Amino acid sequence: MPRTAMGARTLPGEYFTSPTVYDQETSRIFLPGWICTGRASDIPEPGDFFLHELDGESFLIIRSESGQINCFYNVCRHRGTRLQHEKCGHLKSRIQCPYHAWGYDMEGKLKSAPNMMGTPGFCTSDHSLQAIACVVWQGFILINQQRPAEDFKNDFRDILHRFDPWELDRLVSAHEIIYDVAANWKIIFQNYSECYHCSLVHPQLRPITSVETASNDFQQGHFLGGPMILAEDHESITADGKRCGQPLAQLSETDLRRVYFYTLFPSLFISPHPDYVLTHRIERVNSESTRIVCNWLFPADTLQQTNFDASSAVEFWDLTNRQDWEICELTQLGVQSRAYRPGPYSGLESMLVAFDQHYLSTMKDD
Amino acid sequence: MPRTAMGARTLPGEYFTSPTVYDQETSRIFLPGWICTGRASDIPEPGDFFLHELDGESFLIIRSESGQINCFYNVCRHRGTRLQHEKCGHLKSRIQCPYHAWGYDMEGKLKSAPNMMGTPGFCTSDHSLQAIACVVWQGFILINQQRPAEDFKNDFRDILHRFDPWELDRLVSAHEIIYDVAANWKIIFQNYSECYHCSLVHPQLRPITSVETASNDFQQGHFLGGPMILAEDHESITADGKRCGQPLAQLSETDLRRVYFYTLFPSLFISPHPDYVLTHRIERVNSESTRIVCNWLFPADTLQQTNFDASSAVEFWDLTNRQDWEICELTQLGVQSRAYRPGPYSGLESMLVAFDQHYLSTMKDD
Amino acid sequence: MPRTAMGARTLPGEYFTSPTVYDQETSRIFLPGWICTGRASDIPEPGDFFLHELDGESFLIIRSESGQINCFYNVCRHRGTRLQHEKCGHLKSRIQCPYHAWGYDMEGKLKSAPNMMGTPGFCTSDHSLQAIACVVWQGFILINQQRPAEDFKNDFRDILHRFDPWELDRLVSAHEIIYDVAANWKIIFQNYSECYHCSLVHPQLRPITSVETASNDFQQGHFLGGPMILAEDHESITADGKRCGQPLAQLSETDLRRVYFYTLFPSLFISPHPDYVLTHRIERVNSESTRIVCNWLFPADTLQQTNFDASSAVEFWDLTNRQDWEICELTQLGVQSRAYRPGPYSGLESMLVAFDQHYLSTMKDD
Repeated sequence: MPRTAMGARTLPGEYFTSPTVYDQETSRIFLPGWICTGRASDIPEPGDFFLHELDGESFLIIRSESGQINCFYNVCRHRGTRLQHEKCGHLKSRIQCPYHAWGYDMEGKLKSAPNMMGTPGFCTSDHSLQAIACVVWQGFILINQQRPAEDFKNDFRDILHRFDPWELDRLVSAHEIIYDVAANWKIIFQNYSECYHCSLVHPQLRPITSVETASNDFQQGHFLGGPMILAEDHESITADGKRCGQPLAQLSETDLRRVYFYTLFPSLFISPHPDYVLTHRIERVNSESTRIVCNWLFPADTLQQTNFDASSAVEFWDLTNRQDWEICELTQLGVQSRAYRPGPYSGLESMLVAFDQHYLSTMKDD
Repeated sequence: MPRTAMGARTLPGEYFTSPTVYDQETSRIFLPGWICTGRASDIPEPGDFFLHELDGESFLIIRSESGQINCFYNVCRHRGTRLQHEKCGHLKSRIQCPYHAWGYDMEGKLKSAPNMMGTPGFCTSDHSLQAIACVVWQGFILINQQRPAEDFKNDFRDILHRFDPWELDRLVSAHEIIYDVAANWKIIFQNYSECYHCSLVHPQLRPITSVETASNDFQQGHFLGGPMILAEDHESITADGKRCGQPLAQLSETDLRRVYFYTLFPSLFISPHPDYVLTHRIERVNSESTRIVCNWLFPADTLQQTNFDASSAVEFWDLTNRQDWEICELTQLGVQSRAYRPGPYSGLESMLVAFDQHYLSTMKDD
Repeated sequence: MPRTAMGARTLPGEYFTSPTVYDQETSRIFLPGWICTGRASDIPEPGDFFLHELDGESFLIIRSESGQINCFYNVCRHRGTRLQHEKCGHLKSRIQCPYHAWGYDMEGKLKSAPNMMGTPGFCTSDHSLQAIACVVWQGFILINQQRPAEDFKNDFRDILHRFDPWELDRLVSAHEIIYDVAANWKIIFQNYSECYHCSLVHPQLRPITSVETASNDFQQGHFLGGPMILAEDHESITADGKRCGQPLAQLSETDLRRVYFYTLFPSLFISPHPDYVLTHRIERVNSESTRIVCNWLFPADTLQQTNFDASSAVEFWDLTNRQDWEICELTQLGVQSRAYRPGPYSGLESMLVAFDQHYLSTMKDD
């Protein structure tokens, strides 16, 4: 069945520029959504932590003595002081406020509050840190500001085991690049969701995989995307066409000839290759800018090998990323125009139609 | 008849600071107004183009194969991408979108749209670039976002042939300086419209021409201004008092002893001298800042002469411009004060009274 | 009587972030309040002046020929131009506008207005500079935008003679440091008003004076604070524990063993030491930032002494100031969080309770 855009048109300009829409996205999509903040392997030991900034909020994500990962608002319950300001690090025992030395344990319980004991009505158990839901899935740490951890499995049921063949939870980041892009986050999603632009924007991709080989096994809803087939003379998508290491786990012959591209609404792209998994975390900054954290994930033991070299994979996708961000920025500039009108999608942009539909239905929820 | 300010006072502070007034100016003055964007001689050949930024919009101004100059919103009809991002250049045949290769001819017609042909209901003729009115007058390119090209001659009827003696359409720019000034555009207009400030602000102008010799042949409406008479020992307004080249065209004896200063509401000053024409293009940036593009225009054949040197004219007016912008910035700072109250105009400021009246009547239009 | 916080909690987050609250503070607190702008000794001679910026306004503070200090809006009565743009200096006779040479005397009277004499209805006496109340108290210049100078003594009656023992009007600044701090002005006041944080934030202060010795002789209203007692081996608060000069004036034995800390709502801290007086002027910039001008005041004749060296006092407080601003900035970041909730004050924070009460009652005034 040929893909079709069903006569759909691009979103009106206000969706890419309006602060009102932005705030509505916050309450309809980002507050109740599962937001990827990093990898569990980034904080392997109890006491290891990192901060995650999200829409002006700072979250303290820390592995507790039990090994569980918790997420707290980075706010002291006394005068509101930010508890930690180093981006990442290791705490010995307490989360101590730097102002008046209030001390919390790694489960967020207030354990000491100097000079407060004589305060009438004061009770340490009333002043635990405020926690939010935090789950680990396939090695990703996902947080949710409004909904409980129990909801996660149901929300992700369609894709829960999709990545099992690549044994994603055993992968660690060999390289990370952070990009600041002057474009709305939806333009970044839309750009990732079609290869109609590949021939003009990414000439280096043309000999490796062709838009004609693309298909989609997730065609609507929260998760979208599917495979493209590698050209015969390529083992993976890398600068030299060779794999950067052994194939991942026990991939089937089919998966060894494919690269997959999936969007996980609203904050993550996962792109499994035969030898590595590329991930993009998408962080909204404001209506007109987005931060993108790109990681190249490999098995921990591949990284240990003396001749391991990820540069061929990094180089290829860094170039491709930059080409994408440049065209996304030009699109942002255009849709801000008074003259911009929704334009017609082609059949090659069917995933954008699906993205827009899901986005609009989510924005309508109450 | 002595000039009089008729008891008029300066505009209230909100006219120089309020974003609401700014937006009202956009809809009442700038959208329906003729905006000068440059000179036809800047794009002499078919395919030559430049971009013009105006209030967040980008316009693509291009000379087509027929030699006519067209102005399009710089927005692709597919996904809205900005078509061109180089400030100026030359296109061989098509205006091609860098995203998915949609191609338009220089009249704005969509000529190719890869992969769209199978899209039901898609028709190239529905997706031409959006054009706005664009006329060439005295070598100036003027655009209008709301009104048709046919209206131009009537709108400019009072001044249409005023500059014929200087053969303005034969002049090209010998020098350009761009100034960014932290003052409202109306303060720039008002400063240009009186020489009451000349004795304190421009000491170098005093021996050349005196405020007492100023008169005005346009005293109300869209176009304002008139001549000042040169001192006997000066041939023009230049640093050394000598002309930078032959007198322009066939100027009368009277015009050879005069410099004229005209404001063309809302975006252009034209100042004909015996040997050159000074122009200022005024571009609003926001309530509190303005970009000014200043050009020194000479006959094309004068520029070709081996001993031609515009520096004496450039030096004089660059100094004078900078003195003006500094005092305009101090005035902007002052009118932003809670304490600022409209003050009394002197008789030497009669053109400011006329400017304010025309401005206020335009703002009241519906 | 032990100090108590009476169950009070910190202010809600909007008080530290909301532009609406900020504007309300302008009309309820800062426009009708006495704002400290500097020292009379900064402008000793007639014609000496400095500019004071306050909430986007520029004030010209000048000593007139009679020796009195006047404060004018820095706005010409003609076109509104800012009269002075140098931060400080000396004027020979007239305050002359740089645009059209209107000239005012140092009492603000318009004395010359070139070319205006023929303007019907124009009268120089209608165009004096706009003055606001300006008083000198203990050597401080205080201005008030809404209320008359006569109100000052009554407004300050509780504290009018508090600093007489230190002969503050004879002190001049030996050193000044300006700090720009990314925190709301109230967080700066609150931080100064408790030493609960001293043990963690200011380790260098611990051996000199202890929070247990702190008491307050002003416990509610506009003026708050009181003494701390010096450790036996310290003569003052300095880096080496020694005084930087002779004790001030005729201080009592009690005052020679104490340092006092007072807040004068809404713009001044005065901290008398045995040998010098430390002052902090607090200038709101916006909801989230504050400029602080810190001065070390010594007797004029102490400064003349060849071996005088203030560095031990400057060094100690500059370090302490920077520690304070850092923790204030972390607190500003925290109270901006969606998760921030008012927390419980300890007994050691009783002055913050008093500050909040006075602040809230002032905000309710009409």
